[in-house]
Amino acid sequence: MHATQPTESTALMSRLFAKGNWLLLLLVFVPIALLMEYAFHSSALWIFLASSAAIIPLAALMGRATEQLAERLGEGVGGLLNATFGNAAELIIAIVALRAGLFDLVKASITGSIIGNILLVFGASALWGGIKYPNQKFNSTAAGLSSTLLVLSAAALVIPAIFHMVVPATAGSAERTLSVEIAVVLIITYILSLVFTLRTHKHLYVGEAGPHTDELMPTTSTGKSIGLLLAATAGVAVMSELLVGAVEETAQVFGMNEVFVGVILVALIGNAAEHSSAILMASKNKMDAAITIAVGSSIQVALFVAPVLVFLSYFIAPQPMDLRFTTLEVVAVGISVWIMPIIAQDGESHWMEGVQLLAVYAILALAFYWLPTPG
Amino acid sequence: MHATQPTESTALMSRLFAKGNWLLLLLVFVPIALLMEYAFHSSALWIFLASSAAIIPLAALMGRATEQLAERLGEGVGGLLNATFGNAAELIIAIVALRAGLFDLVKASITGSIIGNILLVFGASALWGGIKYPNQKFNSTAAGLSSTLLVLSAAALVIPAIFHMVVPATAGSAERTLSVEIAVVLIITYILSLVFTLRTHKHLYVGEAGPHTDELMPTTSTGKSIGLLLAATAGVAVMSELLVGAVEETAQVFGMNEVFVGVILVALIGNAAEHSSAILMASKNKMDAAITIAVGSSIQVALFVAPVLVFLSYFIAPQPMDLRFTTLEVVAVGISVWIMPIIAQDGESHWMEGVQLLAVYAILALAFYWLPTPG
Amino acid sequence: MHATQPTESTALMSRLFAKGNWLLLLLVFVPIALLMEYAFHSSALWIFLASSAAIIPLAALMGRATEQLAERLGEGVGGLLNATFGNAAELIIAIVALRAGLFDLVKASITGSIIGNILLVFGASALWGGIKYPNQKFNSTAAGLSSTLLVLSAAALVIPAIFHMVVPATAGSAERTLSVEIAVVLIITYILSLVFTLRTHKHLYVGEAGPHTDELMPTTSTGKSIGLLLAATAGVAVMSELLVGAVEETAQVFGMNEVFVGVILVALIGNAAEHSSAILMASKNKMDAAITIAVGSSIQVALFVAPVLVFLSYFIAPQPMDLRFTTLEVVAVGISVWIMPIIAQDGESHWMEGVQLLAVYAILALAFYWLPTPG
Repeated sequence: MHATQPTESTALMSRLFAKGNWLLLLLVFVPIALLMEYAFHSSALWIFLASSAAIIPLAALMGRATEQLAERLGEGVGGLLNATFGNAAELIIAIVALRAGLFDLVKASITGSIIGNILLVFGASALWGGIKYPNQKFNSTAAGLSSTLLVLSAAALVIPAIFHMVVPATAGSAERTLSVEIAVVLIITYILSLVFTLRTHKHLYVGEAGPHTDELMPTTSTGKSIGLLLAATAGVAVMSELLVGAVEETAQVFGMNEVFVGVILVALIGNAAEHSSAILMASKNKMDAAITIAVGSSIQVALFVAPVLVFLSYFIAPQPMDLRFTTLEVVAVGISVWIMPIIAQDGESHWMEGVQLLAVYAILALAFYWLPTPG
Repeated sequence: MHATQPTESTALMSRLFAKGNWLLLLLVFVPIALLMEYAFHSSALWIFLASSAAIIPLAALMGRATEQLAERLGEGVGGLLNATFGNAAELIIAIVALRAGLFDLVKASITGSIIGNILLVFGASALWGGIKYPNQKFNSTAAGLSSTLLVLSAAALVIPAIFHMVVPATAGSAERTLSVEIAVVLIITYILSLVFTLRTHKHLYVGEAGPHTDELMPTTSTGKSIGLLLAATAGVAVMSELLVGAVEETAQVFGMNEVFVGVILVALIGNAAEHSSAILMASKNKMDAAITIAVGSSIQVALFVAPVLVFLSYFIAPQPMDLRFTTLEVVAVGISVWIMPIIAQDGESHWMEGVQLLAVYAILALAFYWLPTPG
Repeated sequence: MHATQPTESTALMSRLFAKGNWLLLLLVFVPIALLMEYAFHSSALWIFLASSAAIIPLAALMGRATEQLAERLGEGVGGLLNATFGNAAELIIAIVALRAGLFDLVKASITGSIIGNILLVFGASALWGGIKYPNQKFNSTAAGLSSTLLVLSAAALVIPAIFHMVVPATAGSAERTLSVEIAVVLIITYILSLVFTLRTHKHLYVGEAGPHTDELMPTTSTGKSIGLLLAATAGVAVMSELLVGAVEETAQVFGMNEVFVGVILVALIGNAAEHSSAILMASKNKMDAAITIAVGSSIQVALFVAPVLVFLSYFIAPQPMDLRFTTLEVVAVGISVWIMPIIAQDGESHWMEGVQLLAVYAILALAFYWLPTPG
């Protein structure tokens, strides 16, 4: 509108520093992590930290590119794309860990995603939004519907662990067969849930989530979106290799067990984009969007990511992976999905509900931390 | 109204083939099962299948005769009759198995009735009804009240199992004493719940369930109803003898364990009439009736059938039976009664809720199937 | 109004016998218990009974004096006082038992308070009120909010027990560290919940509980209130010494285990005042107040009494106490807090809900009773 236009680089800088874009600054850790690994041969801890920091903006970019493409491809295919790539970052990290045979870590990242999304993501949203608004309303019908799906998904997911508690002797083939069969039931349920949300009952979900990472980048063309998606996916894959390669040594340095690393650290890294989006939505008093992000992500992990990993384990892992979680993971998932419908049923949230969800998360994290290390 | 009247047999045939009456066709398996057992000495599997098929219509006839009598006897006595004979088929099968000392089977048929009614009966109703009607409403107050009773009943029922987990050493007398005491509490609760539903708060339940097997037979006289009830009861008793006699060998042939047979197969057979009624109600968009059948039947099994079997075991069984269920049964009941209030609280159902309930049922059935056989 | 004034003693007598004041009659057991212990050296059973009977009115007086002071000190400090001294009787009994190293008893009295308040106090209120009023309404929003807090508190409280089940080997230092850390999280949550109820969201709780022991005594001056509080506190402390001193021998006489004594007997004694207040409120159709007393007391025990006892154990107990409850306690707390939101969500109660809560309490009590004694 006026004479002096900012230069290209100034514009980039101002966009990076703009509200909501601070995540992109973390992209600087992509080259840092690569240098640490291949040039400086830094210690595992530093590589772990740098690759973690690098995955966060890459995952956000993947999410953004997926959404841009989804919008362009229209409701049907777009919705499917969103549903499949929505948790692609978690999936890629888990696949890399699966190939390395780190099954405890893979399974812990699944449960960590579920409890993290409910307790940490929604807890932080309710707290943060609740500090600004004394009383935040949301659509209790939609939230209730989602939490019912969540409860049913989680119930299905914990059966193998309970089966194992009951039948400790036959650790072998029956459990793996059961896990595969359950994975088939879960993935069928997932496909049908897509039919439900994208086709027969899409009116229930319209305008609910909204473009939850809008602020990250301006809209781009389809070609650019595909390019961005491919580049970000490749970036996540490379950084996941560094992360997984460094995770065991890092855990040893701090005396942390693999389950804690998976449930808390890896899940945090993989879900960082969801965290920032949900809190942003809550701070704008859009609690429906915050709940949809938190609960929707949990459902997707339970019904899609978990069974896909079981299937993939037959092809890329040293041996097949089952769905048997540790007892503490089962309890943590049980508590989380038990709380969600109770929170959701009254259709409003206060900051104290956020505090309580975070308190439960803190206590679970402490319990996971104190689990003995196998060595 | 017109000249040519259909003959007696044509009328019977047309009635049998009429909508809702297809179940009665299965009565043909009553003589088939008898011939197999006593004339042809068929293998256990065939006797098991034939007697199962024969019990289904007999149970439906018992239910119909009970309802007809109940209507004639008026609210008080009639309600009592309905409440007592509503699950008479399950009770008879269980009594026969009790006399044979098949305690795992008896207890499994109790838990199987509870989870089957909730997950399978209501799941199939919600799915089937939901395919016809995108959004089925029901009275969430009545449904909530029932599911509260259900939760409390189930909580009571699983205590002995948890007691056993905690105190594995004293497997003996303390557990049996506890089971009898709990059975006393349950039966008192059941009597008081009858006072509640039939007397002090009957207005809450009026017109809710409706005559749920109306379509099966035209109304008959009191004498005929009593005759029908006695005949059907005798038929169920005889068929149960064949069924229970064949169950162990059949299970061995298929490598199935006794708990799976009880939880899935026997419960299915005993509840087939409820299944067909509930699905019929759902397809007519009468979800209140479908819920009442499913949840009411579960409550009756927990509060009436279970304690009666414990008491009877002191008189007719080789040794007293306790109420200690297996861990997987406890978990299955826990998940089922946990889900029901969450489904019920919003007062509406969709086909996807049906899918999810059926998915949980399928996963539980798989887990029960893979339990090791004792031998 | 008229000539003859009743004498001082007649006034006292008539006040003691007045409606709601019958509890004060039990004060006669204070000197009786002292005489039994120090003059007659009676058997443990009689001292146990007398000191129990004496604690009930003393706890009621403490509650009344606290409320009088709270009213006078205004919302902020007064609310804090109420929140801190609301369960002072339980706390004092527990502290005395803590000093004696009776950790099972202390922890059992914590879980016993939680399940007793929900199942017994609210159950009896719903039954008693429900007999007078067929349908008692309450504010489901406030009740729902409280039961959410309760669920989250209880979830936090049971984690150490589950940790212990998972990691039986490291019974030692990790568990105690975890218990202390959890206690810190709980007490922070408690402080924040006070900010919520007394400051940011006090409008939600206004006029809800009401002066629940109003009928016990006429209003007095601040000085008298402080004197009464000190005297009653000293009385509870002395009687608790007698009670705790006699508890082990009494338990042995009846073949009862320490957990049963704590969960049922001690919890009953410490909560007798709440019991009588809540039932009184229910009989006046003030179900909101009854729920607030029952649930509020449970939350306070979980979030305040439990962590304070852990901290104190480092100073006054023979060795530090952890928060590891027995499995049956975990299950009992789980069932209780699971039921509360289901009962609360529809905003009304009937006598049958009371019956069911009491039935669950009876069954749990039976299970605790049959636990083996350690000796």
